[in-house]
Amino acid sequence: MKAKIFVTLKRGVLDPQGKAIAHALNSLGFAEVVDARQGKVIELEIADAPADPLSTRLEAPARLEAMCQKLLANTVIEDYRIEVTS
Amino acid sequence: MKAKIFVTLKRGVLDPQGKAIAHALNSLGFAEVVDARQGKVIELEIADAPADPLSTRLEAPARLEAMCQKLLANTVIEDYRIEVTS
Repeated sequence: MKAKIFVTLKRGVLDPQGKAIAHALNSLGFAEVVDARQGKVIELEIADAPADPLSTRLEAPARLEAMCQKLLANTVIEDYRIEVTS
Repeated sequence: MKAKIFVTLKRGVLDPQGKAIAHALNSLGFAEVVDARQGKVIELEIADAPADPLSTRLEAPARLEAMCQKLLANTVIEDYRIEVTS
């Protein structure tokens, strides 16, 4: 099973890297770029428990949520979105 | 108009940051995580040309492609995917 986790800075949190990207694009002639924000995407490969693949799938959303809370996102300044594929 | 650009390392390119994430998740008790890869997501805010908003929309895919080629992705080691929203 694969899962993607998108971690982005919350609105209102300063994003200097995004500002640098927007500035660089403007300098390169892409004047239409008004703003840019940079985030992370983390692609996880999750193994099904061989004895009980169904339970892995049922528990996956809660487990992924826990991974985000504990490690992947800093929930003070970042939002996250979980997408389970295949 | 908003656009999202997803930049990920090509398959076969070593991703130490992803490895570190997978290792940390395993240490935290998420033994089901087999592999992790980390990429970037860049959210762009594109201004419509006030005189001709339609042309902005028509040209956007080609312009975004050019932004990726010139600045946002290192096409030797990275793949990118463009998603235009609203």
